[in-house]
Amino acid sequence: MNNFNFHVSTEILFGKGRINELPKVLKKYGKNVLLVYGGKSIKVNKIYNKINELLTSFNIYELSGVEPNPRIESVRDGVKICKENKIDVILAVGGGSVIDCAKVTACGAFYNGDAWDIVKQTFKPEKAIPIVTVLTLAATGSEMNSSAVITNFETNEKLGVTIPITLPKTSILDPTYLFTLPAIQTAAGTADIMSHIFEVYFNNSKTAFVTDRFCESLLKTCIKYLPIALKEPDNYEARSNLMWAGSLAINGLCACGKFDESWSCHPIEHQLSAYYDITHGTGLAILTPHWMRYILSEKTVDKFDEYAKNVWNLPENKDKMFLANQAIDLTEQFFKKCGIPMTLSELGIDDSKFEIMAQKAVKARNLQNAYIPLKEDDIIQIFKNSL
Amino acid sequence: MNNFNFHVSTEILFGKGRINELPKVLKKYGKNVLLVYGGKSIKVNKIYNKINELLTSFNIYELSGVEPNPRIESVRDGVKICKENKIDVILAVGGGSVIDCAKVTACGAFYNGDAWDIVKQTFKPEKAIPIVTVLTLAATGSEMNSSAVITNFETNEKLGVTIPITLPKTSILDPTYLFTLPAIQTAAGTADIMSHIFEVYFNNSKTAFVTDRFCESLLKTCIKYLPIALKEPDNYEARSNLMWAGSLAINGLCACGKFDESWSCHPIEHQLSAYYDITHGTGLAILTPHWMRYILSEKTVDKFDEYAKNVWNLPENKDKMFLANQAIDLTEQFFKKCGIPMTLSELGIDDSKFEIMAQKAVKARNLQNAYIPLKEDDIIQIFKNSL
Repeated sequence: MNNFNFHVSTEILFGKGRINELPKVLKKYGKNVLLVYGGKSIKVNKIYNKINELLTSFNIYELSGVEPNPRIESVRDGVKICKENKIDVILAVGGGSVIDCAKVTACGAFYNGDAWDIVKQTFKPEKAIPIVTVLTLAATGSEMNSSAVITNFETNEKLGVTIPITLPKTSILDPTYLFTLPAIQTAAGTADIMSHIFEVYFNNSKTAFVTDRFCESLLKTCIKYLPIALKEPDNYEARSNLMWAGSLAINGLCACGKFDESWSCHPIEHQLSAYYDITHGTGLAILTPHWMRYILSEKTVDKFDEYAKNVWNLPENKDKMFLANQAIDLTEQFFKKCGIPMTLSELGIDDSKFEIMAQKAVKARNLQNAYIPLKEDDIIQIFKNSL
Repeated sequence: MNNFNFHVSTEILFGKGRINELPKVLKKYGKNVLLVYGGKSIKVNKIYNKINELLTSFNIYELSGVEPNPRIESVRDGVKICKENKIDVILAVGGGSVIDCAKVTACGAFYNGDAWDIVKQTFKPEKAIPIVTVLTLAATGSEMNSSAVITNFETNEKLGVTIPITLPKTSILDPTYLFTLPAIQTAAGTADIMSHIFEVYFNNSKTAFVTDRFCESLLKTCIKYLPIALKEPDNYEARSNLMWAGSLAINGLCACGKFDESWSCHPIEHQLSAYYDITHGTGLAILTPHWMRYILSEKTVDKFDEYAKNVWNLPENKDKMFLANQAIDLTEQFFKKCGIPMTLSELGIDDSKFEIMAQKAVKARNLQNAYIPLKEDDIIQIFKNSL
């Protein structure tokens, strides 16, 4: 195993009804709360009302309308509210977009320049307003890590940044909040979870046995429970396993002892989202099988063979390449059966921006340092195969 | 999944050479350090010298000679040093015994009564000196949780207590420190790790799928790497996987979403240690297969069937009871092959104290609330079968 740090101090309150502990949790930080949320979904599912009922003794300010690919404009709005109202704590209620927006807002409150500098990492924040989250979508894992992804549509940039001081203090994970999700969000969210695992599972490290088995545990959880959650949206067992898997997939646990290699599908997908504003998880589901086929070779076949046997329970076969291809096909069929559109064409994306997106992907994260290094031409080919 | 809390804020610095970061870690807390350790092993393997070289700018006080089943007398000595020298931080260098002793000492420093009150839970500490650990044995997981087990040989009591404020701030896990361990400590330590998992894996919850798969990942890690570590004591891959598995086995992750049932083998074994001062892991290895056979029934066979297939890779078989017994036999043979004495007689223990130990085990933790409830007669029978 390679050397690693693991330090995830977020307090997780998991289960039905845990929202009732919110006043006690927030009280530690102060009276002035910035409530950050997206659209109307938290009003439809009544979390919004519940929170307002619970927090009558707090002063609540609101930043609403945070977009699925959260924009720097929302962050700027949030920063303004924080500065004007001496916000003590940010309460992010939603999925990864809302939480990511809260994270950069929390730092922007102590910075006099433009918040985009934080995302571009030209300003390194040293102070942040504490963040508490109430999760309503199992996908990005933002509730238990310190990363945020923000989009600037003026420059067509979707960039990720990791700021340890923004790690949520407490996250409330109530699986019943997932019951009312649209099917496509459940499916795309799970594709995002699986992609987080793939990004570290497929890695040149060969000695992090315990970590690889953890990765497989989470992948098997997704494969078992996504179809159940789609068929029975209020199946608590399915929702709770998916929700906890989402947090564990990207809180660092799945990377312990592995090489610190650049991710592959995420930086490529970020270009699709930045140019076409598509659902992140959908983009990942489309790209993943094509990326897998593209990098499958004598060099990587052992890892895919492990994936085939340990995740898909395929029987031992001397022809590892056959097994590997079977596993990749199963991955693709799984996403398709779960209702995710599996071609770029279905999303209205053509080849007109493949070159600029490939250029930006290589630049955004050093893809030369990925599991299998990728250059612009490689990415263009993966895009073409995904059409 | 049942509701649960997960909150483990310990910073893990894992890997070769991480000891060099110790001055930076300790500096946060102050200059006065209480160094807690056991016998001469940290002098033989030169960690003691290294620490003294690194910490020349600190004032180091020492509590040495902490026993394998740490005694309340050592805690009392530690408390005295803390009070007399305004200790800012406790540095525990060793295995679970040393860290457990440090935890109760850290609380005792702010209490005017006898430290045994803390273990008996008649005094609830609200303040503790911060603790930093350097781990030299993969076993108890104390480096990443807030539990401590202390023995009082005057009263033949070995009791566990959980005190959240004693959770170590930082733990340094360098797998090379395990290279010089005696084989029996490596084996007994791994038996302890496996027992921590068994205590929660065998549970009446049927819906914590992701957690069960994690448990199996850790068990497979122990089964794969213990024989390698015994054969090649300086095999870094084996030592690192075992070391990280030890921390993850009992930091709460393996219990997420499961019923809060009493443990079984641990409270029974604690009586053996309290009366005979035997190695905790050895006692667990002896008791475990007998406990498993004793509780195997139509009610539990499904769980054992899962254990057989997912941990021992036994092929599907219609006769679940056959598979279950095979898995239990494999568990017993595994410990035996790894050099652990597998009968109480080999440790010089006869049946003379079975009754009093069974009484105390039932009393210490409510064994009526275990996976399969155990009464005194049940425990006596398990002891007899272990002779």
